[in-house]
Amino acid sequence: MFAIAITLLVLDLNVPAPADLHGQSLNRALAHQWPAYLAYLVSFLVIGIIWINHHSMCALARRVDRRTLFANLFLLLTVSVIPFPTRLLATYLTARASDAHTAAATYAATMLMMGLAFSLLFLAFTRDARLLHTPVPPDALRSAVRRFGIGGLCYAATIGLAYLSPLAMLAAHALLAIYYCFDQLAPARRAGA
Amino acid sequence: MFAIAITLLVLDLNVPAPADLHGQSLNRALAHQWPAYLAYLVSFLVIGIIWINHHSMCALARRVDRRTLFANLFLLLTVSVIPFPTRLLATYLTARASDAHTAAATYAATMLMMGLAFSLLFLAFTRDARLLHTPVPPDALRSAVRRFGIGGLCYAATIGLAYLSPLAMLAAHALLAIYYCFDQLAPARRAGA
Amino acid sequence: MFAIAITLLVLDLNVPAPADLHGQSLNRALAHQWPAYLAYLVSFLVIGIIWINHHSMCALARRVDRRTLFANLFLLLTVSVIPFPTRLLATYLTARASDAHTAAATYAATMLMMGLAFSLLFLAFTRDARLLHTPVPPDALRSAVRRFGIGGLCYAATIGLAYLSPLAMLAAHALLAIYYCFDQLAPARRAGA
Amino acid sequence: MFAIAITLLVLDLNVPAPADLHGQSLNRALAHQWPAYLAYLVSFLVIGIIWINHHSMCALARRVDRRTLFANLFLLLTVSVIPFPTRLLATYLTARASDAHTAAATYAATMLMMGLAFSLLFLAFTRDARLLHTPVPPDALRSAVRRFGIGGLCYAATIGLAYLSPLAMLAAHALLAIYYCFDQLAPARRAGA
Repeated sequence: MFAIAITLLVLDLNVPAPADLHGQSLNRALAHQWPAYLAYLVSFLVIGIIWINHHSMCALARRVDRRTLFANLFLLLTVSVIPFPTRLLATYLTARASDAHTAAATYAATMLMMGLAFSLLFLAFTRDARLLHTPVPPDALRSAVRRFGIGGLCYAATIGLAYLSPLAMLAAHALLAIYYCFDQLAPARRAGA
Repeated sequence: MFAIAITLLVLDLNVPAPADLHGQSLNRALAHQWPAYLAYLVSFLVIGIIWINHHSMCALARRVDRRTLFANLFLLLTVSVIPFPTRLLATYLTARASDAHTAAATYAATMLMMGLAFSLLFLAFTRDARLLHTPVPPDALRSAVRRFGIGGLCYAATIGLAYLSPLAMLAAHALLAIYYCFDQLAPARRAGA
Repeated sequence: MFAIAITLLVLDLNVPAPADLHGQSLNRALAHQWPAYLAYLVSFLVIGIIWINHHSMCALARRVDRRTLFANLFLLLTVSVIPFPTRLLATYLTARASDAHTAAATYAATMLMMGLAFSLLFLAFTRDARLLHTPVPPDALRSAVRRFGIGGLCYAATIGLAYLSPLAMLAAHALLAIYYCFDQLAPARRAGA
Repeated sequence: MFAIAITLLVLDLNVPAPADLHGQSLNRALAHQWPAYLAYLVSFLVIGIIWINHHSMCALARRVDRRTLFANLFLLLTVSVIPFPTRLLATYLTARASDAHTAAATYAATMLMMGLAFSLLFLAFTRDARLLHTPVPPDALRSAVRRFGIGGLCYAATIGLAYLSPLAMLAAHALLAIYYCFDQLAPARRAGA
């Protein structure tokens, strides 16, 4: 499902219709679409990293219960909806400021929900030792929860940032994705394999 | 395939074109699309729950015969078509009453077909003990058939409800999905693992 | 990949825009789209049956060589392109006769290519006994080749039929799909498991 | 994910709207779209071959580390974006020369990135013997690196070719895909199974 959401993002990259060029060169028309490429790249990175992390989290699981299935469905909801705010941001990043802010805040709010869903899934897995191959030691768990809390605050802060600078908001999500890639896998590796 | 149908739903969420805002704020234009978000959420929930139930039903199966393959293909047909009535409902939920009724009844009828297909697949599996790891005890089977019958009547009733209130029809399907999630897995668990 | 092609078909079912109803009821506008539903159903059936048959053929395979990979890629090409002639037929089935014939012939030609690709894949598998778990006995092979030949002639005949009656062409493909479902699996079952 | 990208290509094949035929026959309107079919075929072939090669490379891997995950994500990015330059080329191949060159150069540049990403993934796998079932002998490795270098130069040359003849650029990529199919699998087979 991550594979599908990440691949559907490409449908948000529009090919300008020849009739819409109005004598302009295709080169310029394509260059003009830079917000679409940027939004595509950041969303691709975000979904890609969460895909890797989800995969490494599922590798820890021995079996799933109803609670984890629901948490997983909630995560899938937030991930599969990402092409919508991505398209929104691509369309309105260079529009008048108030609309750019709306689009950027919607984007940031979607990412906050996704971060929240990922944290819930992690908690659903780790709160019941029977669901895991190897129980996560209390220390690693406490530190993970603390990191999820800080991550949540960062995500929430990007909603505010969206009203100051939509571009800075997008850059912040690229950085958060890269940070999470290097950080999140650590406790899983330590505890699991 | 469930993964694909559930992810394709996001293509039904339209980004309003800047030229179509006519001075209105993007905020209002997005808020105006609430039927699309609602239809998206309910369809996501419905496909998500049937996905989980289908998965837990397939876990009971030891092998498949021609009959189950056909029943499964029929279920896939009803699930993969869901993005169409979802888009229909999103577009016409707030249109004039007669068109909203048509869209809502189409949505409810699709869900009735899907419920029927799921029941047929369940019967195709359980009527032949050789297809299962552990045979389903006659009691559990009778109670499942009774529950499917009641479920079918509920689905059929939502077609009528569509003509009274499309919104109530949509709410009914959200509730039915949640109900089936908690109910349907029970006999599978009891009989299987 | 079959799963994706079969699910993408739903994108060919258009929701009429409210502005295009011109006072007509949604009911009538939907009824007016019957060629789209019909083309959707037949293409779904065709892809579904080939999916089942491909699955049962792959179950016979112990390993693949370059030739089978290429034959498989050719089959995937013909299957993944099916949404295009389906959309074409849905749009032109009720257009002026010459365009309906073109659309129907394109549809029939795509199916002929798909049948050809399936036959090639079957031959690529069965010509080298080392690729199979159990070698297919010469009798079964000869009879399969004969059946593929007859099937190919039938598919080719539907291209002619497309110029007489596009609807009859569509019905013929529905019948051929159902026939292949019951027939094709037989030798695989006899030879394999 | 390759399966999804390869299947999404079909969405780039447009069915001409009846109102856009302006009395022309559907036959001619379809024939007029030959650049779209050609771009579809070449992109299908390119993704198909890289899919087979990626599969045979992954079969050599015993496990993955962070570096290979990132290299893999980069490859997925370049593959999943292919429908965009394909659509671009289909739309502008027969437009005025300067725009056709831009579209063709974008297509060639995407393929260059994909070739680069594939080489990086290969190096990420082979530089650490612990990631492989059987270490690749130094000779085979050196020869593979040399071949990747030559391949990269060929891909880069097609960007130049795009400004001379977009059609020749497309033909070059079809030939490169077929060449890579026969060549690339060889060292993997020799070293692996």
